Amino acid sequence: MSKVTAPKKVVLAYSGGLDTSIILKWLQTEYGCEVVTFTADLGQGEELEPARVKAELMGIPPENIYIEDVREEFVRDFVFPMFRANAVYEGLYLLGTSIARPLISKRLVEIAAEVGADAVAHGATGKGNDQVRFELAAYALNPDIKVIAPWREWDLSSRTKLLEFAEEHQIPVAKDKRGEAPFSVDANLLHTSSEGKVLEDPAEMAPDYVYQRTVAPEDAPDTPEFVEIGFERGDAVSINGEAMSPATILTKLNELGGNHGCGRLDLVEGRFVGMKSRGIYETPGGTLLLEAHRGIESITLDRGAAHLKDELMPRYAELIYNGFWYSPEREMLQAAIDKSQEHVTGTVKLKLYKGSARTVGRWSDHSLYSEAHVTFEDDGGAYDQKDAAGFIQLNALRLKLLAARNKRLK
Amino acid sequence: MSKVTAPKKVVLAYSGGLDTSIILKWLQTEYGCEVVTFTADLGQGEELEPARVKAELMGIPPENIYIEDVREEFVRDFVFPMFRANAVYEGLYLLGTSIARPLISKRLVEIAAEVGADAVAHGATGKGNDQVRFELAAYALNPDIKVIAPWREWDLSSRTKLLEFAEEHQIPVAKDKRGEAPFSVDANLLHTSSEGKVLEDPAEMAPDYVYQRTVAPEDAPDTPEFVEIGFERGDAVSINGEAMSPATILTKLNELGGNHGCGRLDLVEGRFVGMKSRGIYETPGGTLLLEAHRGIESITLDRGAAHLKDELMPRYAELIYNGFWYSPEREMLQAAIDKSQEHVTGTVKLKLYKGSARTVGRWSDHSLYSEAHVTFEDDGGAYDQKDAAGFIQLNALRLKLLAARNKRLK
Amino acid sequence: MSKVTAPKKVVLAYSGGLDTSIILKWLQTEYGCEVVTFTADLGQGEELEPARVKAELMGIPPENIYIEDVREEFVRDFVFPMFRANAVYEGLYLLGTSIARPLISKRLVEIAAEVGADAVAHGATGKGNDQVRFELAAYALNPDIKVIAPWREWDLSSRTKLLEFAEEHQIPVAKDKRGEAPFSVDANLLHTSSEGKVLEDPAEMAPDYVYQRTVAPEDAPDTPEFVEIGFERGDAVSINGEAMSPATILTKLNELGGNHGCGRLDLVEGRFVGMKSRGIYETPGGTLLLEAHRGIESITLDRGAAHLKDELMPRYAELIYNGFWYSPEREMLQAAIDKSQEHVTGTVKLKLYKGSARTVGRWSDHSLYSEAHVTFEDDGGAYDQKDAAGFIQLNALRLKLLAARNKRLK
Amino acid sequence: MSKVTAPKKVVLAYSGGLDTSIILKWLQTEYGCEVVTFTADLGQGEELEPARVKAELMGIPPENIYIEDVREEFVRDFVFPMFRANAVYEGLYLLGTSIARPLISKRLVEIAAEVGADAVAHGATGKGNDQVRFELAAYALNPDIKVIAPWREWDLSSRTKLLEFAEEHQIPVAKDKRGEAPFSVDANLLHTSSEGKVLEDPAEMAPDYVYQRTVAPEDAPDTPEFVEIGFERGDAVSINGEAMSPATILTKLNELGGNHGCGRLDLVEGRFVGMKSRGIYETPGGTLLLEAHRGIESITLDRGAAHLKDELMPRYAELIYNGFWYSPEREMLQAAIDKSQEHVTGTVKLKLYKGSARTVGRWSDHSLYSEAHVTFEDDGGAYDQKDAAGFIQLNALRLKLLAARNKRLK
Repeated sequence: MSKVTAPKKVVLAYSGGLDTSIILKWLQTEYGCEVVTFTADLGQGEELEPARVKAELMGIPPENIYIEDVREEFVRDFVFPMFRANAVYEGLYLLGTSIARPLISKRLVEIAAEVGADAVAHGATGKGNDQVRFELAAYALNPDIKVIAPWREWDLSSRTKLLEFAEEHQIPVAKDKRGEAPFSVDANLLHTSSEGKVLEDPAEMAPDYVYQRTVAPEDAPDTPEFVEIGFERGDAVSINGEAMSPATILTKLNELGGNHGCGRLDLVEGRFVGMKSRGIYETPGGTLLLEAHRGIESITLDRGAAHLKDELMPRYAELIYNGFWYSPEREMLQAAIDKSQEHVTGTVKLKLYKGSARTVGRWSDHSLYSEAHVTFEDDGGAYDQKDAAGFIQLNALRLKLLAARNKRLK
Repeated sequence: MSKVTAPKKVVLAYSGGLDTSIILKWLQTEYGCEVVTFTADLGQGEELEPARVKAELMGIPPENIYIEDVREEFVRDFVFPMFRANAVYEGLYLLGTSIARPLISKRLVEIAAEVGADAVAHGATGKGNDQVRFELAAYALNPDIKVIAPWREWDLSSRTKLLEFAEEHQIPVAKDKRGEAPFSVDANLLHTSSEGKVLEDPAEMAPDYVYQRTVAPEDAPDTPEFVEIGFERGDAVSINGEAMSPATILTKLNELGGNHGCGRLDLVEGRFVGMKSRGIYETPGGTLLLEAHRGIESITLDRGAAHLKDELMPRYAELIYNGFWYSPEREMLQAAIDKSQEHVTGTVKLKLYKGSARTVGRWSDHSLYSEAHVTFEDDGGAYDQKDAAGFIQLNALRLKLLAARNKRLK
Repeated sequence: MSKVTAPKKVVLAYSGGLDTSIILKWLQTEYGCEVVTFTADLGQGEELEPARVKAELMGIPPENIYIEDVREEFVRDFVFPMFRANAVYEGLYLLGTSIARPLISKRLVEIAAEVGADAVAHGATGKGNDQVRFELAAYALNPDIKVIAPWREWDLSSRTKLLEFAEEHQIPVAKDKRGEAPFSVDANLLHTSSEGKVLEDPAEMAPDYVYQRTVAPEDAPDTPEFVEIGFERGDAVSINGEAMSPATILTKLNELGGNHGCGRLDLVEGRFVGMKSRGIYETPGGTLLLEAHRGIESITLDRGAAHLKDELMPRYAELIYNGFWYSPEREMLQAAIDKSQEHVTGTVKLKLYKGSARTVGRWSDHSLYSEAHVTFEDDGGAYDQKDAAGFIQLNALRLKLLAARNKRLK
Repeated sequence: MSKVTAPKKVVLAYSGGLDTSIILKWLQTEYGCEVVTFTADLGQGEELEPARVKAELMGIPPENIYIEDVREEFVRDFVFPMFRANAVYEGLYLLGTSIARPLISKRLVEIAAEVGADAVAHGATGKGNDQVRFELAAYALNPDIKVIAPWREWDLSSRTKLLEFAEEHQIPVAKDKRGEAPFSVDANLLHTSSEGKVLEDPAEMAPDYVYQRTVAPEDAPDTPEFVEIGFERGDAVSINGEAMSPATILTKLNELGGNHGCGRLDLVEGRFVGMKSRGIYETPGGTLLLEAHRGIESITLDRGAAHLKDELMPRYAELIYNGFWYSPEREMLQAAIDKSQEHVTGTVKLKLYKGSARTVGRWSDHSLYSEAHVTFEDDGGAYDQKDAAGFIQLNALRLKLLAARNKRLK
């Protein structure tokens, strides 16, 4: 493996939790380097100020503590562009974790430039996708940056050793963190993912207590709720007629979807690093957004554009999953996708009920749907059925030539 | 348009309904040709014997009346191969109508060969996709066959004219057919589709009475039901441990899904002939089958194969939608897909509840899921986290070279 | 077929040749409509002024005669964007005819708007691709325009009838046009294509006299010539260090390539209308341009972008071949391709010799080639070979899990 | 990096050259393990028996020396399947090195099973693609095999150290190997590649002495030579009417192509490990084979199949280049490609002249080319030109609806 020479100043993605606190201390003790902490509000639903207090307790001077609310940037520049593509990984996963990593790396690298740090550090393990996503993004943004991934380097390979290290260095450990969590969680404004431990047998149904952000469909209201989502150029801009900012819209959709038990997913997926893993995902707002986006595209997007998008999508989703957000090929696909969204403007009506979100109506000034053409009634000459005969004959011609060839050779 | 010289003997796809009865008579009177009727049980849920009676009443001799139960062939040779691909058109449509047409054409052409007919005829209109599907399949199977599409030829352009023609030729018209149906229906073992008339405004929610095969989610049982679907080499072979034939499985899944309100879809789609149309689809069993098939693939299919399948799927679905079932490129894709299914064997547990069907567990002797590799616990050396560093470095190399280039040029 | 109501004023794509002169007269006599002629210099190598004289002779008033040199627009807005994609149809054809049609339609439709014409007309036959290209482009630019395709309408189905019509209407017929040409030709600044008649047997070698624009490789100079082509953002901008306009560059490349016998192609291709045809293409300058563009991309384009381009290319080429230049999906692909060209800047050295044009050197300030990384010598730590072990291990992991599964099941 | 526990018995890919002899000795001294040598005749044009002598000199017992002629297997099971796909990497490279590696790994793993070895070893460096190809293939065939890559492990990092090691262990060093070669070579029946050292500056033309297998086009005969290649189901089976085995055909085509200076390529390519490298490739026979295969496909393959193949090809080529021959996705693509070749049977006539190989004629009983359809003459009703009107109208419909929408919104 590449030897990284000891860093002098490191910007650490710091949550304030036990693990990244141990990393903070380990960076100080292992490398004797200056540490800058970056704590971002991505909508994970945790207070950020405790992270500041903890960082200060561990000797980080105030000017080295960065705490930022990046929710609007997250939704506007990462989540929304991805939803323009209707991106799902392996048919089902809405990429809630994947899409957050590039933004964190971007800020780490930017802060490193501001404070003159030569390295960034993250708390992702050596088995997962997140290390790849963090590091590819960092290198793509600054080819000279060093990336420290303590989980791949240190020998704190068991819970016991970690707690010993914490104790030794007087890192406070909350009582509920003394035992091991029954599963591991990642959360942001787009989703909550849970994996590991009690979830490791994919034959076993996930226990109810794993779900944190959505009510069980069984506990959702007994009457459906209808919601209208307005779009402009492919992005959601309003709910029930009320214009909102990107992060506000996603927050509101999460609330609506969560109340109705929407967006739960139990998935076994293929990781970029080669093994399969099982995750429980909750993406209430994203699930509504995807359904509605497909709904508005269905009337505003030409078939040629729509089908090309569908063919490009799996590759696009794979790139994001694998950590190639900042790659020329993702940017090429984004250019194609964005080009298609110029007229994806209008409104979709969804029905939310007991875990499902379904389009039940859609309308738009930009609609390509032509009742005049499709009607079973007299269409006033909009469409000449006789054209279909020629259309079929010429589409059939190569098939006829094939059939004649095969017949001849029999 | 191609001029078709008058046929001498025609095999007609005959439902026994009013429209195809009028076609039958029109073929006799317009072309003075002998007519052979073919009525297939594709699981549309209608009695077939009345069609025999009606055909006889219209003067078709018994040897010219073909009535066949093709449900097993339909599911085994058409539906199941398609589901191996996880095929959905425009992200959502399970292709229930599209996949039935090639089978009907195949039998029409085969019967034509048996009885020495020079033409086949169908009752699809000139605005839809079905005419294309019928005809491309027919031409691909016999390049010399004539295809008669009366709706594109005759001048019976209004309901009134049709009824007049029926009356004039003493075709019995059921009382409930005197008025116009509020929408048009197509059904087979895979799905029921409804379109036209009351459904023509895509902004308007479809009325309840349109749905014919699924209960409303609101009326479905208040407790979830769990069902286990067994697969072998990509095809469903059992339900809750009981082995069944293909058509029996789909029938049973329809019952299960229908009871729980699963598989309803309200869609605006892009037709091959160029306009958009709105359809209401009910595919209860197919919806369960797709979810379960993805579930079993998630543990038995390698990531490389799975992602390639996802990329090929939209094209495959488009080919079926557009009527190219019997084309070299569909067969090429099928060969690739079938190749991937060798180990897609195992069992998936679904939860059915109020309109949704979700995988909650899956297991297989062919599983590629390795708890040893993925575990958060000590993995006994199955995976060396340090490998990830080299993996990331070499994946990053081209991105670093790019970033260095761009930096240099600034 | 769609009934076109009689046009009142038609803009005709007029070459001044016999066929389009007959069309001009036929439009006047058949429809009694006013005719506007549009004659474009696309680099076909013919004088345009004789077309004006002929049009005037046939009674077209001067204000209805449009004669334009569109060579720069042709190369800049059509040829160059296409070459950014390295587009070849069916592996070999450089799309020289296909890419000219949309430009002609664009001007026809624009002139129609200027002069208040309700229709455009072209001289392409009903068997070829060009009719499709002309008409799809016209309809995409003005959905209400009428398109008149006389070859599909009239009964002048033999050479004799055409000549009779000409005689009857006093259309002058050059002596060498009295007999039938031994093959049919289309030419513009990008290529010359020949097809039909003596070329119709694809087993037979094309006779020498078919080639019009390139010397035979056997007759080319006995010493190679080297040429350096400069690129900026994907487009050629200079030859041997001399900056030139797009059309000037292509003209010069045609001269260079033609002198060395480059760019001859004998191809059987699949037409959009369903049959196969055989064509002889000469694309001397384009052949050099494609080779050089690939050469400059090879050092300036990242592997991820380059491979995505290669995968998108066949679709892109098919769209142009089939006449979908003005379609959302072509524009989406163009957006992706153009995005990739930002750094495709530098110089390529080609060797021209006896029919071949090969890259022998390439250099660029934007180069991604790193001698430091690739060298067999000591690389000073630019690359750590040990990284490769981890890279391989993780790429192998899924294959190992597959192999272990398959072994287990034996 | 993964720690490999010391192997007990290793099968080494052994050329008999200096480098692999040093590796042989190093394995013995570093690991104290038993070594089995495998030397394959892949058509590289070197005697194999000297390798036996050298192995014996280094103490390898006869039963541990495997020397095999695998040329027929190489062409039949690797080269020909790949050429069915018309595979080229990055538009130009015929994959001559890439396709040989899986076969070598296959035999290494098979021999290891026979002799009870727990490891295999190869002499590829840590910077190139070959290490990846060797190892992915080995792991895919035996997930438990160990792979030793001495170049990534040892500290013999300079030429001087290597020679010292050779001297110390009494490995004979040919005089011409004492100095460094001016470039590095790989050869087999399909191609010769040269890279490194004098070739490292991609701006500089490759010196003449690099080329080893083809005459310079300038030195090729002054008269063209014509050759007819016969195909059956996609594979070449005869030359000028004479049936030959796969390896014999490729040998003969190499001779023909080499004499005429065909198949030289100067390329900068993107390696899987992330950097770009420059190579000089000579693939005389393969170049003829590719041209002829495209030629026979042009008349025997339907457009639908041909275009799908073209779209799949870049991915297929990338998989082979990256070492994923033994992967489910390569096998899926192969299944699709092979399915398409059922009728790719017939003969192609090539013209070889001064470095180029061009199709000038092709014929087949399986031809889909229909002179009746394509002719400019009267076609006797094979094709009704009026069909084209309907074909265009329906292809245009969605474009018209788009244009109307965009017009409406202006």
